[in-house]
Amino acid sequence: MARTHRYLVQIRWDDLDLFGHVNNVQYHAYLQEARVDLLFTHGAELGITGPGSMSEGVVVAAASIDHLIPIEFPCAPVVIETWVSRIGGASFTFSYRILDSADETRVYAKASSVLVPFDTTTHKSRRLTDKEREVLGLYFVED
Amino acid sequence: MARTHRYLVQIRWDDLDLFGHVNNVQYHAYLQEARVDLLFTHGAELGITGPGSMSEGVVVAAASIDHLIPIEFPCAPVVIETWVSRIGGASFTFSYRILDSADETRVYAKASSVLVPFDTTTHKSRRLTDKEREVLGLYFVED
Amino acid sequence: MARTHRYLVQIRWDDLDLFGHVNNVQYHAYLQEARVDLLFTHGAELGITGPGSMSEGVVVAAASIDHLIPIEFPCAPVVIETWVSRIGGASFTFSYRILDSADETRVYAKASSVLVPFDTTTHKSRRLTDKEREVLGLYFVED
Amino acid sequence: MARTHRYLVQIRWDDLDLFGHVNNVQYHAYLQEARVDLLFTHGAELGITGPGSMSEGVVVAAASIDHLIPIEFPCAPVVIETWVSRIGGASFTFSYRILDSADETRVYAKASSVLVPFDTTTHKSRRLTDKEREVLGLYFVED
Repeated sequence: MARTHRYLVQIRWDDLDLFGHVNNVQYHAYLQEARVDLLFTHGAELGITGPGSMSEGVVVAAASIDHLIPIEFPCAPVVIETWVSRIGGASFTFSYRILDSADETRVYAKASSVLVPFDTTTHKSRRLTDKEREVLGLYFVED
Repeated sequence: MARTHRYLVQIRWDDLDLFGHVNNVQYHAYLQEARVDLLFTHGAELGITGPGSMSEGVVVAAASIDHLIPIEFPCAPVVIETWVSRIGGASFTFSYRILDSADETRVYAKASSVLVPFDTTTHKSRRLTDKEREVLGLYFVED
Repeated sequence: MARTHRYLVQIRWDDLDLFGHVNNVQYHAYLQEARVDLLFTHGAELGITGPGSMSEGVVVAAASIDHLIPIEFPCAPVVIETWVSRIGGASFTFSYRILDSADETRVYAKASSVLVPFDTTTHKSRRLTDKEREVLGLYFVED
Repeated sequence: MARTHRYLVQIRWDDLDLFGHVNNVQYHAYLQEARVDLLFTHGAELGITGPGSMSEGVVVAAASIDHLIPIEFPCAPVVIETWVSRIGGASFTFSYRILDSADETRVYAKASSVLVPFDTTTHKSRRLTDKEREVLGLYFVED
């Protein structure tokens, strides 16, 4: 049974733009917080930390998002649900949903990002290790 | 002959992340600056300002980006090239390239965003006016 | 007995700079979140909302901060303690402490900001009303 | 004759808040850009780069700002004037003015920050070297 990673992000007044809604740019920051939590903070327990590991260096190669409902302020924290929707040889894809934590039927946005691990000493992209593929597999859900 | 809108964005040290590159989130802020310049600042000369016009209210409905080369700091300002790649009934698509202004063969990223005009009094999306379609047509390039 | 307003701010990876600490600029954003919570969100219960009230328009006229300990990531949310340290005719001063919520003896920073209410229709600063002075008085602590 | 460092910062729509002015937090980001330009980018020509030098590690210990005129958008870039107003044993103070580049009699803000060099290997603050005191002296103006 695949896991979905869940991460709560507190909305800041600072995230609003002139129109009084959370600015579209900030959604990408929210996704990043969820991603960092999954890869870096959970890296130790996932056994994928250490020099050269994913918790040290992952680059966003591509990203896409669909904005469904504007986020108003003040509001409850948003929930970022993250899962793995593709595991390739040298890249993988995270898919996300941004939800209202006070009413999870309210889906603010759906998104995905293609991530590429890189070697922090050579600064070049590298292939996924077997261990990494195994850990990512725990979060794999076919779209 | 279609126009491409060009806008220079100065890179800030504040845009860097822990890895010393411009963080992926900031690319979306750069695109927004180009978009605002095209729609708001040039709105007057384009004849599309005034209450309820696009210069007052446009929402990002969807966005996608391909990151090609990391942006290092310090560097020359980036050039954002923007053109219209689709004109629909109630939405349109901007396509972008982010270039190094010191060497325009260096393409940092390619991106696009689906934009929806909304009525600032009813806060509902609305159809494009004939005038808006005409102005957007000046920047139209088939992908 | 004077009240101290307490507000928890979640730290984001996005707040870090190249040196791996929360960037000094973000502290000002944290203080702003606490201030907004006190003035805007609590405005209704404080009886100071409505057109032209403080919950609608307050400008930062001056600010100062002492940074005591760097904020590392990941960490528990920070607590922002806010109280009123001066009530003038047309301005007032908020004082703040930024603490580690996991160990409140760890004081990350001390700060203050001079705030000026302005009239949202004339866009000019204005004097505090009696009601506002009374509400601010609830949070008043002599430094 | 003391030098004043000048740095131009482009204003972004992204810097505006709900009230349509540049948010007070962003002023601190602008000052940081000027500071980085002075210490890091000019570090090489000032002869103060290299491991353990100021271009590698300087911490903001304290900061203060007076906001004089709101910054509206769109506007010309702002000029940040920076000079050294104090040179101590293990810290120094930068003073700043933020001006409208299109009309330098318009002073948006005055500010200062106390800066402490630290050793990037031990992560402890350290005393200024003679070379650093000499270079800072070039920008020294008594307040």
